[in-house]
Amino acid sequence: MAQKPSIPKGTRDFNAEEVAKRNYIINTIKSKFEIFGFQPIETPSFENSETLMGKYGEEGDRLIFKILNSGEYLRKLSEDDYSSRSEKILTPRISEKALRYDLTVPFARYVVQHQNDIAFPFKRYQVQPVWRADRPQKGRFREFYQCDADVIGSKSLFQEVEFIQLYDAVFTALGLNGTTIKINNRKILSGIAEVIGAQDKLIDFTVALDKLDKIGEDRVKEEMRSKGIAHEGIDKLQPLFDLKGDFGTQISSLNSILAISEIGLKGIEELAFINDTLTSLGLQTAKLQLDVTLARGLNYYTGAIFEVVAPEGVKMGSIGGGGRYDDLTGNFGLKDMSGVGISFGLDRIYLVLEELNAFPKTIANSTKVLFINFGEKEALACIQAVSKLRNNGVKAELYPDSSKMKKQMNYANRREIPFVVLVGEEELNSNKFTLKDMNTGDQETLDFDALLSRLQ
Amino acid sequence: MAQKPSIPKGTRDFNAEEVAKRNYIINTIKSKFEIFGFQPIETPSFENSETLMGKYGEEGDRLIFKILNSGEYLRKLSEDDYSSRSEKILTPRISEKALRYDLTVPFARYVVQHQNDIAFPFKRYQVQPVWRADRPQKGRFREFYQCDADVIGSKSLFQEVEFIQLYDAVFTALGLNGTTIKINNRKILSGIAEVIGAQDKLIDFTVALDKLDKIGEDRVKEEMRSKGIAHEGIDKLQPLFDLKGDFGTQISSLNSILAISEIGLKGIEELAFINDTLTSLGLQTAKLQLDVTLARGLNYYTGAIFEVVAPEGVKMGSIGGGGRYDDLTGNFGLKDMSGVGISFGLDRIYLVLEELNAFPKTIANSTKVLFINFGEKEALACIQAVSKLRNNGVKAELYPDSSKMKKQMNYANRREIPFVVLVGEEELNSNKFTLKDMNTGDQETLDFDALLSRLQ
Repeated sequence: MAQKPSIPKGTRDFNAEEVAKRNYIINTIKSKFEIFGFQPIETPSFENSETLMGKYGEEGDRLIFKILNSGEYLRKLSEDDYSSRSEKILTPRISEKALRYDLTVPFARYVVQHQNDIAFPFKRYQVQPVWRADRPQKGRFREFYQCDADVIGSKSLFQEVEFIQLYDAVFTALGLNGTTIKINNRKILSGIAEVIGAQDKLIDFTVALDKLDKIGEDRVKEEMRSKGIAHEGIDKLQPLFDLKGDFGTQISSLNSILAISEIGLKGIEELAFINDTLTSLGLQTAKLQLDVTLARGLNYYTGAIFEVVAPEGVKMGSIGGGGRYDDLTGNFGLKDMSGVGISFGLDRIYLVLEELNAFPKTIANSTKVLFINFGEKEALACIQAVSKLRNNGVKAELYPDSSKMKKQMNYANRREIPFVVLVGEEELNSNKFTLKDMNTGDQETLDFDALLSRLQ
Repeated sequence: MAQKPSIPKGTRDFNAEEVAKRNYIINTIKSKFEIFGFQPIETPSFENSETLMGKYGEEGDRLIFKILNSGEYLRKLSEDDYSSRSEKILTPRISEKALRYDLTVPFARYVVQHQNDIAFPFKRYQVQPVWRADRPQKGRFREFYQCDADVIGSKSLFQEVEFIQLYDAVFTALGLNGTTIKINNRKILSGIAEVIGAQDKLIDFTVALDKLDKIGEDRVKEEMRSKGIAHEGIDKLQPLFDLKGDFGTQISSLNSILAISEIGLKGIEELAFINDTLTSLGLQTAKLQLDVTLARGLNYYTGAIFEVVAPEGVKMGSIGGGGRYDDLTGNFGLKDMSGVGISFGLDRIYLVLEELNAFPKTIANSTKVLFINFGEKEALACIQAVSKLRNNGVKAELYPDSSKMKKQMNYANRREIPFVVLVGEEELNSNKFTLKDMNTGDQETLDFDALLSRLQ
């Protein structure tokens, strides 16, 4: 019985046009990664479970796709374990491998495993799919690509400067002018928590602050109160809510707000260095903006935090993000390796380019010319010409069967092939080719050399 | 406690050089696919289990990696099913998705699912990883790439002609001259079985014949006898074992051996058409060879069978293969779609190019110039120059920290960066750059424009 074909929810097929558009974005990103000195690596799609589990929090552990052991996987289980009938007990015993959940943990594993072969600071990029058992929804998939660049092994703030330049270079190359690169520093957040006496509630505090854009000032304060942050502390936040002006002005305000916090002042100093350097270098089309409410991945980042927002008028969450983390490889036994990195959100960038109609027209790269098939004798002459065109770099096809003319022309139209060549008996005898422009309908009869130069 | 990092057996990490070399092969193949008019598609890494199971035989089903359902996957099981403690009963109930085992079945599923959006004959290519729970050994991995091109929806033998040209084009472009493209036709094998009265033992017969290269004539005959093929039948095979000469001569011999078999003669006719057409077209560097013992994937192919062998002197199994199959999409409800396709063995092609030292020297594409970091003031001047070089397409890096000169030079050496730039106080004051050629040791002091033109 025939199966009705379908694919798992949250996954996608890509047709030729979609592949071409995705590759356009990916290749633009990769070429800028390489211009900036990043080297590609690739890691396996699945890792040993112990490499991944426990690295993304409890929620992350649940969202990791686990691979069933091969063969008689129930054999290893004790009677007690089996009769527990508990996923918590069974899963680690019947599954020892899991699909990559992101590129960062496999990268950390890679660095430690190959540390003797790596010249540090190690600038690597990686563009590969990852998998998450998340509930699929618009723009969220169970299989999607990540495009990451990271440097590991240097604390220099020049890295942060370069990553912002890199964002600017990629989005400029993609014709996505007017992106905003938001920046913050985890140390600023620590400093604020210190000033308002909420060091012990740093996570609650920043989770609430992070929602300012979405829920507004009053509800942020309400949430902070509900988490047990004192009134006086929240009042001290007022200058933060009122923070305005350009980067330099905000830095000045922060200097007075955080005057008593050593770590806060350190964060300001770092931000100021990055901003000053970039001011002297200039950005092509992006805008750098200080956003003290930016907190993404707080458990993880220890210094700079980045997030890129699409040009104004395009409704889309962040199209990129990243930051500095001071102990990425500690889990795998390599201490004191500071890293900093950024990621590009391929699917969202795709949607933004679609919305702005910003994909170049010439991407699709389809066949340039189709030779109509009038029968075996004519087809033999055509395939000679097709071969020569291909050897000269022209994307050419012979329609394989001598079907009705209408069917063959219809194929050319559906494939959006701009030219067809007709070789009937007359052309065959005179060694000529009739070239038809599918857009204008114009026809001309040419010898091979003229045909080649028209199509090249 | 730190984990000792490792990856699952049969999987691999790829470093920058390996990624570059693999991409060189993949990009060469893709560019020829496109010249020949094939369009890229991509399918999800995992499919619904019912899409894959039962399509590769019992052995194949065992080798498919199954993904454990998320969440409370034991809930769905009845008490009886659970207490069976049998993988056969449990697996389909706790796992509903599986990793792609090859690209052909997902392609068939894709064609049926998207048939209304496809212009037939559909020429698609696909380059993606596949996964098999095979026992890993030298050259056999649990995750590996397949590079496939197929046409579906035409019975024209011009397709077979074009696939042989495509093999020739790719291997010529890779500098792999002197490959042998072996060809056979399933109809010839059926004809032989008919002639010797072993139609009912076609599989046994071809499995034995397929081993001729490895175990020799006598043991092939022995195996056939042990499978119950009659003495007289085997004796009739003698002319086949003695088959010699060029393509045309072998065709003549086959014509007399298979004179009484209609299907056999049809196979010969097809082979002759393909050979005649290719003789008039000419191949660039490959050689076409008739091999009546070639049987790969017999359950599957119905017409032409291809296999590519590396140039003489290189010990390596086949580096490509394919053939025609008449009912690829029937499983998914679309009947009478004839397909023909070929596959390239990326890993083996890689090994052959390594052995022949045939990778171009310029692949690695690493950073062209490293700016040495003498301190913050100098570094600021350097990063200005680095930015300008990058904007002009030069792969440039600033060493991020003002570490000891030796450490920075060592980094340049390990990364095989051919040039370094030194900007000390003197250069800073005169707005110059000292460029050192890491191969010759030569140094010269230049202004920016001269530096740029030296590095471009």
